[in-house]
Amino acid sequence: MADIEPATVADVPDILSFIRALAEYEHLAEHVVATEDALRASLFGPQPAAEVVFVREGDERVGFALFFETYSTFLGRKGLYLEDLFVKPEYRGRGHGRALLVHLSQEAVARGCGRFEWAALEWNTPAIGFYEKLGAVRLTEWRTFRLAGESLEALARLPQRG
Amino acid sequence: MADIEPATVADVPDILSFIRALAEYEHLAEHVVATEDALRASLFGPQPAAEVVFVREGDERVGFALFFETYSTFLGRKGLYLEDLFVKPEYRGRGHGRALLVHLSQEAVARGCGRFEWAALEWNTPAIGFYEKLGAVRLTEWRTFRLAGESLEALARLPQRG
Repeated sequence: MADIEPATVADVPDILSFIRALAEYEHLAEHVVATEDALRASLFGPQPAAEVVFVREGDERVGFALFFETYSTFLGRKGLYLEDLFVKPEYRGRGHGRALLVHLSQEAVARGCGRFEWAALEWNTPAIGFYEKLGAVRLTEWRTFRLAGESLEALARLPQRG
Repeated sequence: MADIEPATVADVPDILSFIRALAEYEHLAEHVVATEDALRASLFGPQPAAEVVFVREGDERVGFALFFETYSTFLGRKGLYLEDLFVKPEYRGRGHGRALLVHLSQEAVARGCGRFEWAALEWNTPAIGFYEKLGAVRLTEWRTFRLAGESLEALARLPQRG
């Protein structure tokens, strides 16, 4: 079925709307600083940093996924990472999220990726149950660390040997 | 100081040795299936999937880092992800790990990345304390999910609408 389609540069306003809708759902809306210009440059410039697909119901785009390739040293192979997955609340329970995950699993296999990964907020139990039903394993023993904004710049200002 | 240097294709055997040493330290050695051929193809072919740097003490390579670019939709910008960081046990406590993290922070800023991230095993308290001292924030509310091997292939075999 042709109800999953890759985004083009003309879709940047739709992509930003979906990013904002997901952030609202995650109670993280205040963290969205992306702009249409930034998305256009980073996703549709000479070196796209990620890829986007939409899922449609009839003529309407009801969900999206944004993903990029990663790397596993243990496998010595690429992986696929799903940064964002979102289906509009009024279109949930109709298989759109599952269709996106099946599609991306097929992409991962076709590209020779040994892994397909993503993150979920731990309070999002409906999502977690859904992921586990599809066979995904929760990596309980790993914790993610992040440097961003001023703390990233502060570390970058230090001498390598100090 | 020129004690951090990018790896070339001639360094594949050293890279695999470091990957195996890190896996031993993490009690995950049985998960390493990477081979020299796989590393050569994926890291030094026409589309490198990740980059590697070594840190030296004198003439000896005492540690390495493997990283790749990611994407943040909330920022609308690239990020940098550190997949592996390892310093040989007998060379720890001499600033080599810190030098690698400062170097990669500088790379992140120079490339316009808005984030620099990595994961640690939750029992690895020396590493976690070290990361927090450098200003990194632990993302306590996120959990990572993974499909790999047979479960990835099984999902990919499903019809998108079934």
